[in-house]
Amino acid sequence: MSSRHKSSATRLRLALPATSANLGPAFDAAALAMNFYIRIDARPAEAFSIAASGRDSEICGRLENNLILNTYSEVLAAAGRPLVPLRLRIANGIPIGKGCGSSAAARLAGIALAVHFGRLRWTDAQVIGQASRREQHPDNASACWLGGLTVARMSAKAKAQVVSVHPKGKWPLLLAVPARSLPTEKARRVLPAQYSRADAVTNIQNSMLLLAAFTEGRPDLLSAALEDRIHQPYRAALCPLLPCLQKLKGKDGILGAALSGAGPSVLIFVDPRASAQKVGRAVAAHLLRNQLAAELLPAAITLRGARVTRS
Amino acid sequence: MSSRHKSSATRLRLALPATSANLGPAFDAAALAMNFYIRIDARPAEAFSIAASGRDSEICGRLENNLILNTYSEVLAAAGRPLVPLRLRIANGIPIGKGCGSSAAARLAGIALAVHFGRLRWTDAQVIGQASRREQHPDNASACWLGGLTVARMSAKAKAQVVSVHPKGKWPLLLAVPARSLPTEKARRVLPAQYSRADAVTNIQNSMLLLAAFTEGRPDLLSAALEDRIHQPYRAALCPLLPCLQKLKGKDGILGAALSGAGPSVLIFVDPRASAQKVGRAVAAHLLRNQLAAELLPAAITLRGARVTRS
Repeated sequence: MSSRHKSSATRLRLALPATSANLGPAFDAAALAMNFYIRIDARPAEAFSIAASGRDSEICGRLENNLILNTYSEVLAAAGRPLVPLRLRIANGIPIGKGCGSSAAARLAGIALAVHFGRLRWTDAQVIGQASRREQHPDNASACWLGGLTVARMSAKAKAQVVSVHPKGKWPLLLAVPARSLPTEKARRVLPAQYSRADAVTNIQNSMLLLAAFTEGRPDLLSAALEDRIHQPYRAALCPLLPCLQKLKGKDGILGAALSGAGPSVLIFVDPRASAQKVGRAVAAHLLRNQLAAELLPAAITLRGARVTRS
Repeated sequence: MSSRHKSSATRLRLALPATSANLGPAFDAAALAMNFYIRIDARPAEAFSIAASGRDSEICGRLENNLILNTYSEVLAAAGRPLVPLRLRIANGIPIGKGCGSSAAARLAGIALAVHFGRLRWTDAQVIGQASRREQHPDNASACWLGGLTVARMSAKAKAQVVSVHPKGKWPLLLAVPARSLPTEKARRVLPAQYSRADAVTNIQNSMLLLAAFTEGRPDLLSAALEDRIHQPYRAALCPLLPCLQKLKGKDGILGAALSGAGPSVLIFVDPRASAQKVGRAVAAHLLRNQLAAELLPAAITLRGARVTRS
């Protein structure tokens, strides 16, 4: 091994959390990071290879059309750096194509690999900005990289303005993930072009009330604050889990439910005083009665975003 | 003096702060309380009388068509309580009809007087709800009664959901008040009925970013967060101070400017690191150059809302 090869041969380990964007009224504006992850171990090699385990391992493991590797190559090429072939080990815990932030995590992974193996000196803001432009919205990427609950917007110059907020108190979650995925583009096509002033104002009020509920530790406000008139009413037909689970609001220890990202998964906010097990059983029974199927994943907001370990 | 008369003869003193609603993107959703007040000293008397001093004393002092007394009488009548005539001393520091929350303060004063002299046992929520219904929006009334920065919405059942948030750090303000008043109804008529999705989303993002800037103590985010597409662009023609003062954004220690309520006053957010005097001089010079006149009132967010003293 030449010294030049050796100097670039450091290993990189990444753990990137799943994220849930939109949170009811906060459409294209906010997201939170959840405590399940895609973990990647990368070393320079003679040629690209991937050993994938965990969820959707056939998608994670392919070398063609792989979002992590494509992003990695594109960022290196744009920066004028040589493409360092990698041997990747991927252990994935994020459902792919289900509105749980898998594409933001994959793009951030590709960018982090390019920054490391291409020796780019990028700030967090640059990493988030690059991922946000590729995602065409900054919410998942911000929450994935920074953790907690993030509020984000892109400015005119395609720069992302981002704040990460630590929710006060406990906010237990239950994620309902159906078997079939839903492309974001399809979920976006059903949205109207125009909204009434009343609908716009309702979402402004509720997204602020939602943020205040988290920062002030007021789960009692969440049921009211989750009302959305911008995207969920139009996506309910594509995501039958949503109207079904919204009916549980205020019952069985459930504060409310929101589409996770563009769906089809649904994020359920659980009363911190309720038994998570009982809530899980109540949700499962309700789905069964309504002849709907979903995997139920208990989750929590993680305050830590992406973990990057060089060794 | 009979004992019955005496028992209801306790004096009530009130101090209610000015408030500024809308805060750029947070249209009909948020407001903050400022450190100038209407102060009222009320005692039961043989007949109604008012001695008014301070701002707009001719409006405050009239017995006909007085918003405080009308509200007082209506609330007592609705509650089936006798009308106790009052001798009022009013010292007013809130400009009337200028978007500084004078009507919310007057209605809350009338309600507080009715609660006291009519011996109603109302909670804060009932007081705010009553004032909000009369105002037809809950933002000024919430901030006036609770202080700080409030986020509020009316629910379907005309109940107000309200959170008061303590901004982190210092947020010096400068209020520019023109000579002529502007009726809220006139300012509302110029608003469109429909908005594009992009405009609605921009306001959702910015109103959340604005709230996070206050709760996280991030004045650096305020300039971007103040961008509004729901009301200010349409009201600029009615409120020429706004486009004029918005040009100072990022200059001379000014973070940004927003219409105060429905205008015509403009709330200027001052960089906490800047000299308030220098900022005041820069704003005055800028107005003079643009041939616009306004009274400039230095202000701060007050964390204390209405003060009610029984004696």
